[in-house]
Amino acid sequence: MEIRNKVSEAVIRRLPGYYRYLEQLEQSGLTRISSQQLGARMGLTASQIRQDINCFGALGQQGYGYNIGELRAHIAEILGIGRSNNVIILGAGNIGQAVAQYPGFANLGFCVKGIFDVSEALVGKNIGGVQVLHSRELDRYLEENVIHIGVLCVPADKAQAAADELVCGGVKGIWNFAPVDIAVREGISVQNVQLTDSLLVLSYHMLNDSI
Amino acid sequence: MEIRNKVSEAVIRRLPGYYRYLEQLEQSGLTRISSQQLGARMGLTASQIRQDINCFGALGQQGYGYNIGELRAHIAEILGIGRSNNVIILGAGNIGQAVAQYPGFANLGFCVKGIFDVSEALVGKNIGGVQVLHSRELDRYLEENVIHIGVLCVPADKAQAAADELVCGGVKGIWNFAPVDIAVREGISVQNVQLTDSLLVLSYHMLNDSI
Repeated sequence: MEIRNKVSEAVIRRLPGYYRYLEQLEQSGLTRISSQQLGARMGLTASQIRQDINCFGALGQQGYGYNIGELRAHIAEILGIGRSNNVIILGAGNIGQAVAQYPGFANLGFCVKGIFDVSEALVGKNIGGVQVLHSRELDRYLEENVIHIGVLCVPADKAQAAADELVCGGVKGIWNFAPVDIAVREGISVQNVQLTDSLLVLSYHMLNDSI
Repeated sequence: MEIRNKVSEAVIRRLPGYYRYLEQLEQSGLTRISSQQLGARMGLTASQIRQDINCFGALGQQGYGYNIGELRAHIAEILGIGRSNNVIILGAGNIGQAVAQYPGFANLGFCVKGIFDVSEALVGKNIGGVQVLHSRELDRYLEENVIHIGVLCVPADKAQAAADELVCGGVKGIWNFAPVDIAVREGISVQNVQLTDSLLVLSYHMLNDSI
């Protein structure tokens, strides 16, 4: 609870990057890193790195830097990595199928348990080891199973109704790939995936970095 | 060139969000907004908003705020929106197909001109109005067509070779969906799409916001 008041969204958004980089370093056999070295990789100053990490109470040692394994484990805990989150996907179109088969979710503890679609052509299809169910079965499914995260891969005009159904069924987090904002009650978390944002950042750099 | 030295990556990453929000405001008929109002929506303080926008030389008027249309147009120009970028996609699997058919790219000036894959089952298939070509035709295609951006939707172990081929063929920006870092020469821009990052930010909020 203490964390919540201190940590800005910008810092939170940097945490997965820290985690990925520290995991790489650990796999390559390194055991410690200075804030300067970490900053060089993350595009931040050493001072920003220290500020970010201090937010979470994981202090480095003066002249020693950070213990890579400890820092990675600490960030993993903060991000809920390995907590075993059950995930269902609404919409088995291209994005839904890509999410269902995306490597790397399972390692982080996110397990796709179900996929739902209204299309009879898709119902029954096996995607990444999970059979597509008809969307009309969603309510009953949510009564019978504990699902933490719902992934919205439905068209924009179906997103709000799908989100409402998920929240009604006890889902606590919505990962929204539909290109539309959705409203949820307090206590429910939503992350919108804005694919175009990353493309526009690329466009910015193409215009400005190559001068 | 002046811009490049002043603008942090964090500010650049916020620009697409500004653009999206200002576009919504403009469509709803509003003509001006204060830094306080803009900040409330963006999760930033009014002072941060003013700092961000001052980076690009678009000054608001004391006591008046920002002209929404002007600010949107200014950010559009900075991001290269509407510049007509030709895009090709390497890999016509789920992610490649999802990108090819993603609504909203064309409106921003990003036009998918070609899709390439090694699978004979996919070659010839029409995806979002574009026919999949065999990857062996890529070199010749790049000789004959001006392509600005290549989208990597190939498996991790094919990503570097595919990136090399794109750069060789004159592509200036790479939008990388492969879960691996790629190396490119100076003057080439790369943006990695890390789907897991957004899922982990959701996980963080689920753990911390609902307390």
